Amino acid sequence: MINFSINKTLFLQALSTTKRAISSKNAIPILSTIKIDVTPEGVALSGSNGQISIENFISIKDENAGLLVTSSGSILLEATFFINVISSLPDVTVDFKEIEQKQVLLTSGKSEITLKGKDADQYPRIQEMAASNPLVLETKLLKQLINETAFAASVQESRPILTGVHFVLSENKELKTVATDSHRMSQKVMTLDKNGDNFDVVIPSRSLREFTSVFSDDIETVEVFFANNQILFRSEHISFYTRLLEGNYPDTDRLIPTEFNTEATFNVANLRFAMERARLLSNATQNGTVKLEFKNGIVSSHVHSPEVGRVNEEIDTSAVAGEDLSISFNPTYLIEALKAIDSEQVVIRFISSVRPFTLVPEGNEQGFIQLITPVRTN
Amino acid sequence: MINFSINKTLFLQALSTTKRAISSKNAIPILSTIKIDVTPEGVALSGSNGQISIENFISIKDENAGLLVTSSGSILLEATFFINVISSLPDVTVDFKEIEQKQVLLTSGKSEITLKGKDADQYPRIQEMAASNPLVLETKLLKQLINETAFAASVQESRPILTGVHFVLSENKELKTVATDSHRMSQKVMTLDKNGDNFDVVIPSRSLREFTSVFSDDIETVEVFFANNQILFRSEHISFYTRLLEGNYPDTDRLIPTEFNTEATFNVANLRFAMERARLLSNATQNGTVKLEFKNGIVSSHVHSPEVGRVNEEIDTSAVAGEDLSISFNPTYLIEALKAIDSEQVVIRFISSVRPFTLVPEGNEQGFIQLITPVRTN
Repeated sequence: MINFSINKTLFLQALSTTKRAISSKNAIPILSTIKIDVTPEGVALSGSNGQISIENFISIKDENAGLLVTSSGSILLEATFFINVISSLPDVTVDFKEIEQKQVLLTSGKSEITLKGKDADQYPRIQEMAASNPLVLETKLLKQLINETAFAASVQESRPILTGVHFVLSENKELKTVATDSHRMSQKVMTLDKNGDNFDVVIPSRSLREFTSVFSDDIETVEVFFANNQILFRSEHISFYTRLLEGNYPDTDRLIPTEFNTEATFNVANLRFAMERARLLSNATQNGTVKLEFKNGIVSSHVHSPEVGRVNEEIDTSAVAGEDLSISFNPTYLIEALKAIDSEQVVIRFISSVRPFTLVPEGNEQGFIQLITPVRTN
Repeated sequence: MINFSINKTLFLQALSTTKRAISSKNAIPILSTIKIDVTPEGVALSGSNGQISIENFISIKDENAGLLVTSSGSILLEATFFINVISSLPDVTVDFKEIEQKQVLLTSGKSEITLKGKDADQYPRIQEMAASNPLVLETKLLKQLINETAFAASVQESRPILTGVHFVLSENKELKTVATDSHRMSQKVMTLDKNGDNFDVVIPSRSLREFTSVFSDDIETVEVFFANNQILFRSEHISFYTRLLEGNYPDTDRLIPTEFNTEATFNVANLRFAMERARLLSNATQNGTVKLEFKNGIVSSHVHSPEVGRVNEEIDTSAVAGEDLSISFNPTYLIEALKAIDSEQVVIRFISSVRPFTLVPEGNEQGFIQLITPVRTN
């Protein structure tokens, strides 16, 4: 029967991280619990929603944890409730003791709280993976790739494969990351410092967003392991599993145009704020679009909602070249594309009013390109 | 036709304050607009939800407003939308110009936004009050009275009068403020520095909560005017009207017990945290109560939920006197009562397990007393 004592604050942090994989509204009731496995080496906390699983290990060697294990064992506890109880405790230390019939007695200061738990055998097995030959990535780099692409993935389940982000490693060091919802696309191509085994996987964008929340910036590197239908991101204390999407990801390379007729360079923030103003009114129009006009080297944005009103605005450019153009599109796509760009300036290139246009950060040493499809109006 | 220019930040602040009276889901569509009245003296912004009305005046004399009025007039604009548009504007200054057919052209930097407005004649009249002989109160004091009592008002409409806070001025300077939902009561009695005309009114607690948000701490005093069914709180720039509740407020004085059998002094924060722990489990019990036990000078709290678990906790006291006692009640009432107390220590006095108990801040120079009714168990 389990018996350990631990620093309350550190325990709560580890529980909150694990909780990110746990939904209180899961169709499988047992998945609303958190699994606690205690061994002489430390305490492992596991949670899963069937898609993502997180295991967080607190070692007896971690000085901040003040962990003292007297007796080992496993138990399940209702995750949300257990975390609320731990966070309410008065003292800096919690004693966690399993008593008769899968009950846990928590003691902290003068407070004694008894909670009913469940048999750990009821918990589904989190798939173990053969931990060999991982790809080692900087956490910061992986989070940047996710920020630059995952937002462009589809949120609709009509084409499930498009709800994921396509990660491809070829020639052992060429990493391509791409997402598209068929209206816009975001792609980043880069060369890794170290070689790795080639792979071609589609990771649910929702899992990737959770990844960025779970792996804090103080975790420098993350090991990536692949199995048939799963991927594991692992740091010293945290194992983050997610299922992969099955199916063939569309060939996005052929979508990227190479010849253009109009080109302009904008300040990213200025253009984004202009699009946010335009969106206030485009939301009240039938097709929800803003019109961008290029005329004699002047760029301007226009929205006209018969009910609400209109926006007309000249947008500053640092360079304009090529043919005059008038093109309409959903301003949200441009706003989200601009949010993903870290540079101060962006170069936008157009073919015509009916062909996708591209965005690249000025300089574009980073191999980062985005595509937005216009809307035909008339 | 209206024409003025104004500092964007200050305009936005005044709009946001006025917006507090406006609900976008009002059954009367015209009340989702904000009324803008421009005169050579300044700009008045009015909003109302039928219960509360707020008028905010921006004077041409206010240097921070940078207000320049070229032409007067009145117009109505959809409140939420107009505020979003103003907040999106690029420049520090906004030019507001009424053009043909109740349309407004907003110019800021290179951005031109045209909005459709409505005729100001469609707006209901906010009742004007004879502004004579106001009661002048410190804003800080009034907000304190509200914080100490309004939470105890009822949120259920079954007895509408109990959704208000009873304010009574007698003998021209004795102010009593009291609220009860029939399960608990909070009352503050104080003597004002200056004399005023006696009054006896019941103000909706919801209006009072809005009052505390609208009147910021830099507004030192507020003038209070009464009419038959309305009250007006007025500062230099803001007029805040609210309707009063009609009916007789119950006589609460007779509820306050004067003799007790058990008494204890607690640290307010410690007791509150103990009750928050108890509430985590009492929420999962049938009657939702915590049991407080006084035995041989030791105070302890107990909750037992057959499904979830139990809490047993000894609670530190700085003094205990009188008979042993066991009393059950809803911990939320005690938590909210303790939140309203500013002192470090609270004295709680009991008659028996079936009679209301009282809370007073230690010292009680402030004339502040609260009452909580226990729940009979078994």
